[in-house]
Amino acid sequence: MASSLNRQFVIAARPQGKAKLSDFQLTQRPLSAPQDGEVLFRNQLISIDPYQRNLMGNASSELPPVELGQPMPGPTVAVVEQSKNADFAPGDRVISWSGWQEYGLSDGSDLQKVALQGAPLTAALGVLGHTGLTAWVGMRKFLNAKPGGTLVVTAAAGSVGSLAAQLAKRDGLRVVGIAGGAEKVNYLREQLGLDDAVDYKSPDFAERLALALPQGLDALFDNVGGDMFEALMPFFNLHARIVICGTIAQYDFPGAAAGPNRLPELLKSFLYRFIEIHGFAVPDHFACYPDFLAEVAPLVAQGKIKYSEELVDGFENIPDAFMRLFDGRNRGKLIVRVDQDTPAS
Amino acid sequence: MASSLNRQFVIAARPQGKAKLSDFQLTQRPLSAPQDGEVLFRNQLISIDPYQRNLMGNASSELPPVELGQPMPGPTVAVVEQSKNADFAPGDRVISWSGWQEYGLSDGSDLQKVALQGAPLTAALGVLGHTGLTAWVGMRKFLNAKPGGTLVVTAAAGSVGSLAAQLAKRDGLRVVGIAGGAEKVNYLREQLGLDDAVDYKSPDFAERLALALPQGLDALFDNVGGDMFEALMPFFNLHARIVICGTIAQYDFPGAAAGPNRLPELLKSFLYRFIEIHGFAVPDHFACYPDFLAEVAPLVAQGKIKYSEELVDGFENIPDAFMRLFDGRNRGKLIVRVDQDTPAS
Repeated sequence: MASSLNRQFVIAARPQGKAKLSDFQLTQRPLSAPQDGEVLFRNQLISIDPYQRNLMGNASSELPPVELGQPMPGPTVAVVEQSKNADFAPGDRVISWSGWQEYGLSDGSDLQKVALQGAPLTAALGVLGHTGLTAWVGMRKFLNAKPGGTLVVTAAAGSVGSLAAQLAKRDGLRVVGIAGGAEKVNYLREQLGLDDAVDYKSPDFAERLALALPQGLDALFDNVGGDMFEALMPFFNLHARIVICGTIAQYDFPGAAAGPNRLPELLKSFLYRFIEIHGFAVPDHFACYPDFLAEVAPLVAQGKIKYSEELVDGFENIPDAFMRLFDGRNRGKLIVRVDQDTPAS
Repeated sequence: MASSLNRQFVIAARPQGKAKLSDFQLTQRPLSAPQDGEVLFRNQLISIDPYQRNLMGNASSELPPVELGQPMPGPTVAVVEQSKNADFAPGDRVISWSGWQEYGLSDGSDLQKVALQGAPLTAALGVLGHTGLTAWVGMRKFLNAKPGGTLVVTAAAGSVGSLAAQLAKRDGLRVVGIAGGAEKVNYLREQLGLDDAVDYKSPDFAERLALALPQGLDALFDNVGGDMFEALMPFFNLHARIVICGTIAQYDFPGAAAGPNRLPELLKSFLYRFIEIHGFAVPDHFACYPDFLAEVAPLVAQGKIKYSEELVDGFENIPDAFMRLFDGRNRGKLIVRVDQDTPAS
């Protein structure tokens, strides 16, 4: 072990609106040796994610925020340094939930061994990590559109949406992606091979959406909520299934939105169109991780699933990297590489 | 066979607002003899149901209306008069979907033999028929509250709601019923033994609801929609499951309701409370009918399930009986007895 101090970025203040650098503080805490059953590991790759804003408080989430003075939780790729747990040995690569700190200590229950079948190591935090599992659980556990049926994916160029869309294409669905801007729409059509893609920023969005959905939709993987969801409601077919995986459009949602009230219309569609809507908690489905990896890791290793990621070097750059998510600088899944010698795979 | 003419009440006009007597017409049509594979049966008990208004057109439903000049469809209890189908013999009692006519002809695929295990015959059109199956499917297939969890049932004194509530009580749930007026609330508390009952017509409804749900709700069996659903949204617990079985409050729903818009709030609860909402089509679950009967028929026969029904005598009184549903005269499941000699069981 290189040091007996553990550097952490802790939440120092509850943001008002957007998070800023001063809401974080770099602290050093003494590092305990592992007790019986415990594993000490060193983080090599740290995931930086938009939902971490929710964990800081004063956010749209209903989840309780992280206590002030505690490090930001989140996924990491780590290497085991010391182990008093029979399931792990020094040198093992693991995925942890230890977040923005250099070291972590665990009883092993929240660690998973990295087994990427030849895919790059960084994929363990994105397309083969929590993000990918989210897309896979939504598609495989809650949506059941049949080949030939139409799936709509919102925020389809995002990391969750783009995997959901690609899995659906492989299943033989007709997939329509929605994203903002010509660049993303071209990416969906030309790189991901979706059947159609619609730019929600376009002034003729409503007309284009109707043209893209001549037969309505049988499944919706929604990452956006708000006006986008409402625009899609008239297209719900009988027995449509819907997963609500994000509500990006509602991050600043203050409580009750301006009318008209579209809720009664949605309730009627449950009754007369027999639809289902599901939210889900990804941790409830961690047991599926091996099944997910078995299906998706070979596709990633073979280049059959496309994804994008952005690496930032240096532990001390974590808060600035986090800012990138909210100021338009970010392109693809954001990962901080703590140790520049960490191999790509 | 008593006659070679078949009397039918057909839909003669699309109602504007409430249905009226002149929207129906009594017609007589020649009765064909059964062909190979077919069954000819005579209706003895005919079900009169609120959703039949939806089948007349100009209604809140999105389902296509019945063609003008055709008889109103719906459940009946019938006796087989002639059979060229090996599965049915003259004298067999069956449940049909032939609706408001004296005779019906079927290939047998939509007929089910009556097997009530000692329960009264009229129950086949209510608590042991389509109505009961609706409650049972909602409870058994879509809600999964555990003993000790809280279920809310709206329109709990109605025929679907009261069975759902009683099944849940037998499962060990804490059951809170919502209904309109002191008489119904007393019925829920004293006759059905619910843990609490709240009068939505009471001026202190919101306060009473909060008192009845100190731990929130884990499951909701909703027959009402509209404002009632919105009043319940703040009480949804993590992982709550919801069945939308009716939207009585929205029968006159014109399209878009006055604001504020509560839809974004609901979408957020999917995401952060991991809830599920289901609509379902009862015909998709007809294969469950034997399982449903096996569970519920003995309870009805033994008097362990309470239900109320109202019998009207005489085929010619069908349209007037239908009016009762909408002018406040009706008490309990409404059935027209065509043949006064039909035994009760």
